[in-house]
Amino acid sequence: MIYITRRERFNAAHRLFRPDFTDEQNMGVFGKCSNPNWHGHNYELFITVKGNIDETTGFLVNLKKLSKIIRQQVISKLDHKNINIEVDFMQGKLASTENLAVGIWNELKHHVAELGAELHRVKVIESENNYVEYFGT
Amino acid sequence: MIYITRRERFNAAHRLFRPDFTDEQNMGVFGKCSNPNWHGHNYELFITVKGNIDETTGFLVNLKKLSKIIRQQVISKLDHKNINIEVDFMQGKLASTENLAVGIWNELKHHVAELGAELHRVKVIESENNYVEYFGT
Amino acid sequence: MIYITRRERFNAAHRLFRPDFTDEQNMGVFGKCSNPNWHGHNYELFITVKGNIDETTGFLVNLKKLSKIIRQQVISKLDHKNINIEVDFMQGKLASTENLAVGIWNELKHHVAELGAELHRVKVIESENNYVEYFGT
Amino acid sequence: MIYITRRERFNAAHRLFRPDFTDEQNMGVFGKCSNPNWHGHNYELFITVKGNIDETTGFLVNLKKLSKIIRQQVISKLDHKNINIEVDFMQGKLASTENLAVGIWNELKHHVAELGAELHRVKVIESENNYVEYFGT
Amino acid sequence: MIYITRRERFNAAHRLFRPDFTDEQNMGVFGKCSNPNWHGHNYELFITVKGNIDETTGFLVNLKKLSKIIRQQVISKLDHKNINIEVDFMQGKLASTENLAVGIWNELKHHVAELGAELHRVKVIESENNYVEYFGT
Amino acid sequence: MIYITRRERFNAAHRLFRPDFTDEQNMGVFGKCSNPNWHGHNYELFITVKGNIDETTGFLVNLKKLSKIIRQQVISKLDHKNINIEVDFMQGKLASTENLAVGIWNELKHHVAELGAELHRVKVIESENNYVEYFGT
Repeated sequence: MIYITRRERFNAAHRLFRPDFTDEQNMGVFGKCSNPNWHGHNYELFITVKGNIDETTGFLVNLKKLSKIIRQQVISKLDHKNINIEVDFMQGKLASTENLAVGIWNELKHHVAELGAELHRVKVIESENNYVEYFGT
Repeated sequence: MIYITRRERFNAAHRLFRPDFTDEQNMGVFGKCSNPNWHGHNYELFITVKGNIDETTGFLVNLKKLSKIIRQQVISKLDHKNINIEVDFMQGKLASTENLAVGIWNELKHHVAELGAELHRVKVIESENNYVEYFGT
Repeated sequence: MIYITRRERFNAAHRLFRPDFTDEQNMGVFGKCSNPNWHGHNYELFITVKGNIDETTGFLVNLKKLSKIIRQQVISKLDHKNINIEVDFMQGKLASTENLAVGIWNELKHHVAELGAELHRVKVIESENNYVEYFGT
Repeated sequence: MIYITRRERFNAAHRLFRPDFTDEQNMGVFGKCSNPNWHGHNYELFITVKGNIDETTGFLVNLKKLSKIIRQQVISKLDHKNINIEVDFMQGKLASTENLAVGIWNELKHHVAELGAELHRVKVIESENNYVEYFGT
Repeated sequence: MIYITRRERFNAAHRLFRPDFTDEQNMGVFGKCSNPNWHGHNYELFITVKGNIDETTGFLVNLKKLSKIIRQQVISKLDHKNINIEVDFMQGKLASTENLAVGIWNELKHHVAELGAELHRVKVIESENNYVEYFGT
Repeated sequence: MIYITRRERFNAAHRLFRPDFTDEQNMGVFGKCSNPNWHGHNYELFITVKGNIDETTGFLVNLKKLSKIIRQQVISKLDHKNINIEVDFMQGKLASTENLAVGIWNELKHHVAELGAELHRVKVIESENNYVEYFGT
């Protein structure tokens, strides 16, 4: 069993708030992250997959194919977008980094399996001080 | 003459567009950076000041005071904000990194002089691949 | 189960030595890290907690509260301090990075539990070439 | 149980290809990595070992000894070398990062055990976008 | 006058040697960098251009166009290549980082001028410990 | 004229204080950096030299020789040391980063000239948020 990790990047706007909260409640829970005019981040995404080395190629998985899947299923939906408004798999969810990591997992899991590997970890870095990891369960 | 540089960080939403352009023109010139729903970045700001070492303290300038000025004059106006809508010194300007660097220079110049140093450089890092520097002239 | 990691930083002086060793023995085992005049580091601390996403907030844990706990229980005791002399939870222990990681774990474990999460990992980076991780058992 | 990680670095040339493939087949599977004139990388190697803290020293393992082993068994064989031609433990294998991680594991496992620790992970970073991890099974 | 910098990356194999030197002479002057079987690096390239902000766009220069020029004139010739054998603008030159920086300058200068900006600096990072800068004179 | 930069690293303890100040005065001017029990940092040092490319070698200067000089004249005096007590060229000076940069310049200037290059810049990074540069005048 070997693990390989691919980094991709995107930037996006978001806002943390609940429509059923008053502005005061949103500010109390989410602080300046609830700014109604949005704010944004450069996100880094590290996708780790695991499996066995293919003896013919020496690869666990062809990284170009893995990168292509991540770009098609995730980056194209998030990059230069508004996470609250424009990202299909985040509709109806709070735009937290935790929910984003789970959403990205669900977008990728089956596509990684089709490459003959298993999705192991989704890591979303929101800033140099904060990151979230999800292992699927 | 010695140079000292202080890093501060902020994140913000922005959009590159001209109201006098059609959507097609904006997309042609600014690409996905013109997304009407905004996108955003984690920005890094490096402020360099220059001057002589104070023999009493061994400092060019007290870094706590320099940091406080940068936070008051710049970071508090930009962090978790929408650059196009909420930042006073960017009103009426295109929210490009170039204009942002010049705007930050103008916010800081006189305050740095009051510390007994001279503002030398404003460096704004928008992503790991792009940064802008302004030296005041 | 989701994992979230918060980075905090501190710098401190320390010295590796045993009072029951001669200077030669200390130099033999600890090398230049046993310098009687102290040396020091910029340390990076990555605290990982795990648990379930709160459906009301989309958060595993409020990062401001987590950061506040780390600063109160750990950073305030270590930053700009001498680890051998001034840090209560390191008294009577060798000031190694290994012991520091275990000490930080013990300072944080119960406070993290009070936030409704579980402490998963303490990672202490002493330099770009060395880091220690402790998972509590 | 505590985990300590040591970083070492090397740079090397390599080429991904199978001698039993035609040039077209190699290009199809390995892309520009199959360039017959070689290309190369700055590799970063993170070696993680685990075990108990020695009460006499406060160390899991003496990092100078660990570093010396990594340099003797791995770095001296790889640094400024051609992985396909000059590295004994890669002979007859495809020079992929996956195979490199497994090869390094086999070079180090017994030597780490002689230090009184257990090899936990070999992490090979080929570029800022790709890395491979191997845990021995 | 504003300065904007674009980062691009490439990896390549090279060898430092003079054909008119004996192997001993090459080893004496160039050390392990003269390995006849090649070695290689991940290079980072930072291209800085300067000029005035275009009032219509807020840009000094369209970064997509600048990136495209760097990729066409430089990266496509260097990435996954052997600098000694395959790079036209390095033919007949020692494959040192110094000569590489000058060569890249000459490849880019006129193309940057056609964008309406002036090439200010070529910075080539060979490793985390070494980099070269060239300002054209 | 070409510029080449070499990075070296050291860690050290220091304290900012004036013996002619009371504890209150020291705390007022230097804050927690005046802790009588010392604190410390991992410092990064970037030494930039400039000159012409040697046509025989393709080098501005042999980096191994430059590194050796920096290690002999600077790193060996600072690494794992107490800057206030043990560093000859800092005796009688406030142990500020500014004075450290000037002191390092004076240690290196003539030795770099003997290599046939000219010292251009000393850059001392004290933390990810602060660095000092000195150009000799």
